Amino acid sequence: MAESGERVTVDFRTEPSRYKHWRLAFDGRVATLSMDVREDGGLAPGYELKLNSYDLGVDIELYDAIQRLRLEHPEVGAVILASAKERVFCAGANIRMLGRASHGFKVNFCKFTNETRNAMEEASAESGQSWVCMVNGPCAGGGYELALACRHIVMADDGNTSVALPEVPLLAVLPGTGGLTRLTDKRKVRRDRADYFCTLEEGVKGKRAVEWNLVDEVVPRTKLDETTKRRASELAAKTDRPAGARGVALTPLERRVEGDRIAYRWVTCAIDRGRGVAEITVAAPGAPPPADPAGVQAQGVAFWPLAVARELDDLILHLRVNEEAIGLWVLKTTGSADLVEAYDRLLEQHAGHWLVREIRLYLKRTLKRLDVTSRSLFALIEPGSCFAGTLLELALACDRSYMLDGTREGDDAPAATLRLTPMNFGAYPMPNGLSRLDSRFLAEPGRVDDLKGRLGQDLDAAAASEAGLVTFTPDDIDWDDEVRIAIEERAAFSPDALTGMEASLRFGGPETLETKIFARLSAWQNWIFQRPNAVGDKGALHVYGTGQRAEFDRRRV
Amino acid sequence: MAESGERVTVDFRTEPSRYKHWRLAFDGRVATLSMDVREDGGLAPGYELKLNSYDLGVDIELYDAIQRLRLEHPEVGAVILASAKERVFCAGANIRMLGRASHGFKVNFCKFTNETRNAMEEASAESGQSWVCMVNGPCAGGGYELALACRHIVMADDGNTSVALPEVPLLAVLPGTGGLTRLTDKRKVRRDRADYFCTLEEGVKGKRAVEWNLVDEVVPRTKLDETTKRRASELAAKTDRPAGARGVALTPLERRVEGDRIAYRWVTCAIDRGRGVAEITVAAPGAPPPADPAGVQAQGVAFWPLAVARELDDLILHLRVNEEAIGLWVLKTTGSADLVEAYDRLLEQHAGHWLVREIRLYLKRTLKRLDVTSRSLFALIEPGSCFAGTLLELALACDRSYMLDGTREGDDAPAATLRLTPMNFGAYPMPNGLSRLDSRFLAEPGRVDDLKGRLGQDLDAAAASEAGLVTFTPDDIDWDDEVRIAIEERAAFSPDALTGMEASLRFGGPETLETKIFARLSAWQNWIFQRPNAVGDKGALHVYGTGQRAEFDRRRV
Repeated sequence: MAESGERVTVDFRTEPSRYKHWRLAFDGRVATLSMDVREDGGLAPGYELKLNSYDLGVDIELYDAIQRLRLEHPEVGAVILASAKERVFCAGANIRMLGRASHGFKVNFCKFTNETRNAMEEASAESGQSWVCMVNGPCAGGGYELALACRHIVMADDGNTSVALPEVPLLAVLPGTGGLTRLTDKRKVRRDRADYFCTLEEGVKGKRAVEWNLVDEVVPRTKLDETTKRRASELAAKTDRPAGARGVALTPLERRVEGDRIAYRWVTCAIDRGRGVAEITVAAPGAPPPADPAGVQAQGVAFWPLAVARELDDLILHLRVNEEAIGLWVLKTTGSADLVEAYDRLLEQHAGHWLVREIRLYLKRTLKRLDVTSRSLFALIEPGSCFAGTLLELALACDRSYMLDGTREGDDAPAATLRLTPMNFGAYPMPNGLSRLDSRFLAEPGRVDDLKGRLGQDLDAAAASEAGLVTFTPDDIDWDDEVRIAIEERAAFSPDALTGMEASLRFGGPETLETKIFARLSAWQNWIFQRPNAVGDKGALHVYGTGQRAEFDRRRV
Repeated sequence: MAESGERVTVDFRTEPSRYKHWRLAFDGRVATLSMDVREDGGLAPGYELKLNSYDLGVDIELYDAIQRLRLEHPEVGAVILASAKERVFCAGANIRMLGRASHGFKVNFCKFTNETRNAMEEASAESGQSWVCMVNGPCAGGGYELALACRHIVMADDGNTSVALPEVPLLAVLPGTGGLTRLTDKRKVRRDRADYFCTLEEGVKGKRAVEWNLVDEVVPRTKLDETTKRRASELAAKTDRPAGARGVALTPLERRVEGDRIAYRWVTCAIDRGRGVAEITVAAPGAPPPADPAGVQAQGVAFWPLAVARELDDLILHLRVNEEAIGLWVLKTTGSADLVEAYDRLLEQHAGHWLVREIRLYLKRTLKRLDVTSRSLFALIEPGSCFAGTLLELALACDRSYMLDGTREGDDAPAATLRLTPMNFGAYPMPNGLSRLDSRFLAEPGRVDDLKGRLGQDLDAAAASEAGLVTFTPDDIDWDDEVRIAIEERAAFSPDALTGMEASLRFGGPETLETKIFARLSAWQNWIFQRPNAVGDKGALHVYGTGQRAEFDRRRV
């Protein structure tokens, strides 16, 4: 955790037996995930996680629980999100932790918590696993943002229980996990009511919370448990998830770290600290796919697409939080495009099977992490690579791509090619809701249709360039210089300017709740997170809890 | 100009005879606006406006020219934007000026330049006055953003001429006037090409600029003039603006400043520095409207809706730049709702008349300035007010509204009412493209249709509240306390947090080029504008032109 003066390397891998802060319980079609944050269980020393407030460690466990509910529990059609504390639901992100954290850590923390909330919404919308929130006490800031990510919110109607986004009045920052956008765009709260609500330290309770659509229903405390369970059962009854299937056990993910090299089974990463570059290589599968979903099930976490999703997911999170100074990620692939395509065929043919659907959605979420990662992304497409279908998405997610035209002198490997599969045409939408191909050809949507005529073909550099799929196609003579210069130049630019530029250029076209959160709300939050009014010596985030009053520069910017 | 250490009060009023930097010429249906920036003509001392670089003063003249082209020149169907310098089109915003400017000034400067570019696009799209850009030399940064705001860009095909957005590589900031968004969303440049383009100091010239859709055509230098004129004539031939009509002379706008009171003919503003509040009152017309457009024409700038647009426009710009510490604007109206409605009827009935259309569009632009103003906006709706139709938009633009329920003790004035006119249902779209009513009722669009059934009715506090048009309706007993407390509370919050909160809550629903620019790109720019990598002692903006190299903190945020 990149706090002032100290660094803790964050590991995103965990499992229920190691949870400090959450309890998972199962009752037929309905699971209950209870938040019970251990005050002394913070990721770093120096703060106490009181009142179910959370830090990144708490959210890592939440993310793990979401993944397991999806993949290990096909039978679960609804999840109740509850607090195990008697008198509080959740007080949001821990303020002392935020007050001590570096700017970069705060921003990264918010990005991860946002992705986790989005995964909850995706489960409700696309995975037949609906989240229901039971609010049994103050539900403030990030606590209410957790509730907002659920499909249905039931709140106790008592004097102690309210929902609130008190960040502006209490802390001089914005709610960091999509709260403002979910108010206006998900729950469509009237803008003047949202304005008032967001300035109320004490929040809103009871009937008014329903009238303003801040929650879905309020019930007497004595009926809270029963009502929430009924709602969850009703939603679970509508699921298309199979009651009798067996899930895939998410056994521990193996990762070897040797110096600046990180190696998983299929994904490897070599860090070059001098140049600030991480070279990430994804290997194609070594054997053909199983014949059917039963075979997928039998392979479990060893099934190549699932393994790649897990490995890339972990690597992206690791590099983001633990390797801030590595500003450019270079993406490569290696192996057989035929095998990649064969797996894609299986994923496409059995898209309706619950486990195949989960694996596709997991790949979608992982690729979306790339889209919102504040690092420059270059694809290098060379002889021996296999940018086909699902792996082609990696190149399409990049800010630019270089494809070697022809063969290398003294190298037997045939010239690099790209290959489109049906998975490139909608299986992995970006946060803006469009496929990467649709996003790429906003000016000429007809080109995407034309590309459907080239499914399965090997496109060499000339064809790929003509089709608009790659940026540059130097030949063997120019390759080394051109790529080296591009990498060196990128490293010489301001990291901040690149972050703003990439966030702007990656999302042309339509906007969604997600793009609004990642590219708009986050930008405002980033700005505010470094304003003296928030983080200066007399700033609100700094003096919170000290009894001192914040002092503000009154000038509006 | 709020530079470190010095303050110059900015006056946005000017006229062609006082222009230092632009020349206007007319040739039948086509006007030419030539940029010829005077190096020693900066708004503040300390920088030279070389290479047609600009500061706020240059842009104020541009804005004035746009207004006059629209209102004074009905005959003009196309405007050529050109440079009067031999070897340069425009080098963009002046870097030394930016390097010296305060954070708040930079942000305000970009907001105004963005609004001015949007006005050019609105002229092309809605006013029958198409802008054509003639690029005759380096066209960089804000220079290219000027070109991007035009409908058609013709560029000389020579070794000296290119378009560029070199902000990231040269200055470690983003293009500040919508450049990135116009690349992706207006010209729909492929994202990887946009990425490459935005990292090139030298920009792109010739055929590649056309192939990448950065410009519309390139022609030999010898044909530049002729081709541009032909394009302008072709576009002018399509205009619906009347060739033979007379325009309205925009005579100098009268404004009296007495201490903390600013008074125009219909708009007055009282500043309370202690509380940080500006109370803005708009008065209804004193007499019925003329019978027809000929009468409007005869009244000229005295025509009430045009006068109100000009006065509000000037006041908003003045308060934004010159009164940064006044964080809350309280909007009031006074006078006869019947007369306001009568003017609205005229504006609606003759919407197709060129001058009426211009006045409606001017009101639209002025109301949009409110939407993107980084100040809290409260409406106070009291006995004697006239929030009807066009003036009701003021209340609907506010973050919240207070309407006094009933009469005041000891006051003869009847209870306040609101009145809807057809002008509330689409004449004044917000930057998100929706009417303020549509934006308000995103959750229940049917309510907007229901409101059409109440056109022309006087809605008292109970009815207005029931209809969802106001936030709070205290009665005489509670009014003073409730309003006072709301104002005091607002003043106690962090100005930065309020800015981010308001920018997020005001724009629910769809996104447009404009909302992307104001609420997303601007937020990133604001963030970067205060990062040490840009503005620190060794930041790129600071050391530019000194021969020193910028030093960057390499950590990605």
